[in-house]
Amino acid sequence: MPDLRRFAINQITTRDWTLEQAVNGYARQGVAGIGVWMEYLDAAGIGQGARLIRDAGLFVPCLCTSAWVNIADKGGFAAALAENRRRLDAAAEIGAPCLVIVPGGLATGEKDLAAARSRVIGALEELLPHARQVGVKLGLEPLHPMYAADRSCLNNFAHCLDLCRSLGDSAGIVADTYHCWWDAGFMPGLREAGPENILTFHLCDWLVPTRDLYHDRGMIGDGVVDFAAYKALLDEIGYDGPFEIELFSKFDWWLRDGDETVAASVERCAPFVAERRKVPC
Amino acid sequence: MPDLRRFAINQITTRDWTLEQAVNGYARQGVAGIGVWMEYLDAAGIGQGARLIRDAGLFVPCLCTSAWVNIADKGGFAAALAENRRRLDAAAEIGAPCLVIVPGGLATGEKDLAAARSRVIGALEELLPHARQVGVKLGLEPLHPMYAADRSCLNNFAHCLDLCRSLGDSAGIVADTYHCWWDAGFMPGLREAGPENILTFHLCDWLVPTRDLYHDRGMIGDGVVDFAAYKALLDEIGYDGPFEIELFSKFDWWLRDGDETVAASVERCAPFVAERRKVPC
Repeated sequence: MPDLRRFAINQITTRDWTLEQAVNGYARQGVAGIGVWMEYLDAAGIGQGARLIRDAGLFVPCLCTSAWVNIADKGGFAAALAENRRRLDAAAEIGAPCLVIVPGGLATGEKDLAAARSRVIGALEELLPHARQVGVKLGLEPLHPMYAADRSCLNNFAHCLDLCRSLGDSAGIVADTYHCWWDAGFMPGLREAGPENILTFHLCDWLVPTRDLYHDRGMIGDGVVDFAAYKALLDEIGYDGPFEIELFSKFDWWLRDGDETVAASVERCAPFVAERRKVPC
Repeated sequence: MPDLRRFAINQITTRDWTLEQAVNGYARQGVAGIGVWMEYLDAAGIGQGARLIRDAGLFVPCLCTSAWVNIADKGGFAAALAENRRRLDAAAEIGAPCLVIVPGGLATGEKDLAAARSRVIGALEELLPHARQVGVKLGLEPLHPMYAADRSCLNNFAHCLDLCRSLGDSAGIVADTYHCWWDAGFMPGLREAGPENILTFHLCDWLVPTRDLYHDRGMIGDGVVDFAAYKALLDEIGYDGPFEIELFSKFDWWLRDGDETVAASVERCAPFVAERRKVPC
């Protein structure tokens, strides 16, 4: 039996399942955790969703994601912050230790990426007191540079780590192999961050070729990411947090039955998610 | 009349034109230079291609590109180096001051990106004496991270600049807005590089959304890149080298008549390619 105690599936991986179906489907195959998306949680109702997860005994590594704050207009920006406070509350209610920060890229018509990045820092600073109050960390996730314009302008591990430090204890890193594998600063950055600053570790492979910028992420082992090297590094630095598979896969896994995707996720991830002490070295 | 003395079109922009058609088509509309691709040059014959370009009075900012060296097998690697020496010779023959280095990513089956990067550095060191001998620089082009696996494992401006420096006078930077616009180190890196290390400056816009990883690059002004900011910075640091539009556009510009693409390139780029002294500040 694989050791799945640290293993979660991010529910976007089984896109067509409701929260209830995902909770049950993951638990049924021994997966210990579920990465929750706000849209599915809202559809279930936050209180009801929290009960479902608790009753199934699943842990929640994170809530995905923050609302975008790439809004130049002051009223719209304030509304985005309010929505983010609501999401922090929701994360607290389902026992998620962090809200994954995907803040958007450029505002409509904007070309000044440095200004967009400043706006994000300002937004995070404004959200900090509420995050602290509800006990949910801001999980900064460096996103792949191909999303800089329209998903997140945080695209570099070292910059996110710097930002984390300036934000203090209520912020941490959400690391994702898909987004960062190309970054020469990723491995040194994980080491520098240390286990205390890595909130959850997303597993996802980079396919060659990649047929779509948004929804062609690869099942573990189908691409070029060196998962064994990451596991070894994380073990070495003493990381004992969650491992969470997260796939966006419109050509492949999203087309399959959820049970099949869960089974494949378990099989492919098992070598990389065991308890640290059980890994021979 | 726009001032096009520093302006070149990279011939991949008019994909369906032969070298002869491109030379004539660009010259006809007052474009001063042509960025040449090896495949078109080979098709024309190197000597004949050189004559065509010389007779039309065009300058050549660069020859695209190096042959990939992402080959773990020693014989294959040596053959790739030999091919690159042939391309350096070809660059010299057509008066191109640099060969654009696009060295490939991971070797077949390889997952160790650091090893791939080391292999590239080794290859460049081996090519240096020949580059020096024929008077053609190795033009290191940081490529977008989405190409790290299968086009080039050089994906960060600062790293390329470091590598340039370690290689010495026979290496320089080929800067491209499409590849680097997301990189917080791009503008500071251009400043740090200084005009003497920027061999040519490629103009290309990032479209939102981008529909294809390889062939959906945007005409200047159709995307999110802040060209005015780059021109201002380059003027400020005293860059007086070429500006070169380079589009891969299978949904749009590659479908149009070459003359139309050239006319649009001239119109869109004219504000950003004038002689430095003529730019009001």
